[in-house]
Amino acid sequence: MDDLTKSAFLNRPDLHVGTEGEFAGWRTWSRNSFLSHNGPFWHRMDDDGQMRCAFRVEKKHLNGMSNVHGGAFMAFADYCLFAIAAPVLEGPGVTVSFACEFLDAAREGELVEGSGEITRAGGSLIFLRGLLKSGERSLFTFSGTIKRVKRRAPAVAGSTTK
Amino acid sequence: MDDLTKSAFLNRPDLHVGTEGEFAGWRTWSRNSFLSHNGPFWHRMDDDGQMRCAFRVEKKHLNGMSNVHGGAFMAFADYCLFAIAAPVLEGPGVTVSFACEFLDAAREGELVEGSGEITRAGGSLIFLRGLLKSGERSLFTFSGTIKRVKRRAPAVAGSTTK
Repeated sequence: MDDLTKSAFLNRPDLHVGTEGEFAGWRTWSRNSFLSHNGPFWHRMDDDGQMRCAFRVEKKHLNGMSNVHGGAFMAFADYCLFAIAAPVLEGPGVTVSFACEFLDAAREGELVEGSGEITRAGGSLIFLRGLLKSGERSLFTFSGTIKRVKRRAPAVAGSTTK
Repeated sequence: MDDLTKSAFLNRPDLHVGTEGEFAGWRTWSRNSFLSHNGPFWHRMDDDGQMRCAFRVEKKHLNGMSNVHGGAFMAFADYCLFAIAAPVLEGPGVTVSFACEFLDAAREGELVEGSGEITRAGGSLIFLRGLLKSGERSLFTFSGTIKRVKRRAPAVAGSTTK
């Protein structure tokens, strides 16, 4: 990671840093009704430059069998795409495709962690893949594509996408 | 549709029927924290036997650009999988894979409608595909696979999955 990409990662205007509890020092994005409603989802960059994402499973994430609902995994994985892409995204973007496999269930109280990698960062499209785990247990694999959104006018505060 | 499958569609114990507003007469599933939190999402079977699903976009579904968040589309599409599969599912099931493309954005107040078809219903796996639209505008295509969950013990109330 050079200073330029670290700076882009840090400069999103809606960035919020946790100040207490288990996610003190982790980051999230606050200008997003859907994620605020379903999160908080968190991310941070480890010293090795790898992005780590996490959320603690609450009752609101569960399905009728008291497992994490598929939609909750998918919403968190979409968040992970943008966290993993953040160092190279440098502006707004939208998900254009997403695919996943459900490997195992997670229950209330578990810590779900997401990690992944950029498989290609082009001028228009960023391709990614990732994995959600609870401890050593693999829960969910995913891949997705983000399209960079061209700014049509001078940058407006709050125009970031996710 | 014969009477047996219609009966299976109607008999899920957590089925709730809307009694007022634009979704009066539509059905939803109520024993599900994640869907209750993000919905209500609704479904009904038309006279031609086609399943129709719908939700009205609220602020809680939006991302930072005031478009429907990708995770909200995916959560609703997962709901659609189970609604479309309901006539042949006849018991609990879990999503094992899902894929989608994001074609266009939707805004607060729009009615997002989902429809689709079972592409194969096997003894273990049910394959489906679908489309989300707002009016005549296509928003999102998806495909998914549901695995039937074998009951290990006599049926327990509330053991349905989605």
